[in-house]
Amino acid sequence: MSVSLNYSAIRVLQGLWLSAPHCHGVPGPVWTLGRLNHVAIAVPDLEKATALYRDVLGAQVSDTVPLPEHGVYTVFVELGNTKLELLHPLGEKSPIAGFLQKNKSGGMHHICIEVDDINSAIVDLKARNIRTLSAEPRIGAHGKPVMFLHPKDCDGVLVELEQA
Amino acid sequence: MSVSLNYSAIRVLQGLWLSAPHCHGVPGPVWTLGRLNHVAIAVPDLEKATALYRDVLGAQVSDTVPLPEHGVYTVFVELGNTKLELLHPLGEKSPIAGFLQKNKSGGMHHICIEVDDINSAIVDLKARNIRTLSAEPRIGAHGKPVMFLHPKDCDGVLVELEQA
Repeated sequence: MSVSLNYSAIRVLQGLWLSAPHCHGVPGPVWTLGRLNHVAIAVPDLEKATALYRDVLGAQVSDTVPLPEHGVYTVFVELGNTKLELLHPLGEKSPIAGFLQKNKSGGMHHICIEVDDINSAIVDLKARNIRTLSAEPRIGAHGKPVMFLHPKDCDGVLVELEQA
Repeated sequence: MSVSLNYSAIRVLQGLWLSAPHCHGVPGPVWTLGRLNHVAIAVPDLEKATALYRDVLGAQVSDTVPLPEHGVYTVFVELGNTKLELLHPLGEKSPIAGFLQKNKSGGMHHICIEVDDINSAIVDLKARNIRTLSAEPRIGAHGKPVMFLHPKDCDGVLVELEQA
């Protein structure tokens, strides 16, 4: 008799295994996707973009924070349930310079979704043939480990996972 | 004596005027930006994209909902604090067909932010030289009035405002 389970069912079974006392064997990684942490928008003019959200749309915005190790200036726009992250290049090798050359007016760059266990998530996603943009997670804008998933494996969307 | 006020200050004064009893004069429109309702992602293969979020990333997803009047099929991905809206063309004149021709793998299409008074918002934004994609709001996927702002006036981002 063969038993076919979809991946959702397998995730539930993994959870049952891990929660069982004195569990033996090597169950696969169990992790949970969380909330949308932010939507990142690359902008050619950071002051103009900040003014749009602050003065025209009336949102609360953060100060400009330079993140030299990431090659960006950032401004966070507070939307109550989540944030927009305005990104502008910092330095010669900024990872968003190429994006802005292709998108002169700016554009949506990535979405960031929280996970409860980023290391389990990475092991699991690699096993599911979802490619990552680096071998290991790095420390993101909030001081927490992050990992970018390959846009080709995510419907053309650059997806950042962040440890919640 | 000339008095210079930035737009944020003007919005605060408008609020004070409107909240004052027996208010006279014609204060400008006052409206408030709310939460991020969703991030819309156009996808070339809706079943594959749904499976990514449901089976690989473990999110709750809705059934596929055809919206013929908008020229799209939609699937909503629940992220707790907000949603992703997967979009796939429905019909010959789908508004996202051109987007998918330029972005074969798919990509982020728009963000939707709630407002408490869409008509006031539109009057106000037009006065601030933010162009809209139609003269009047139309009824969106949730049965509420929506209006799209011109990407050229929003850092290359297609911004949808939705009546909360």
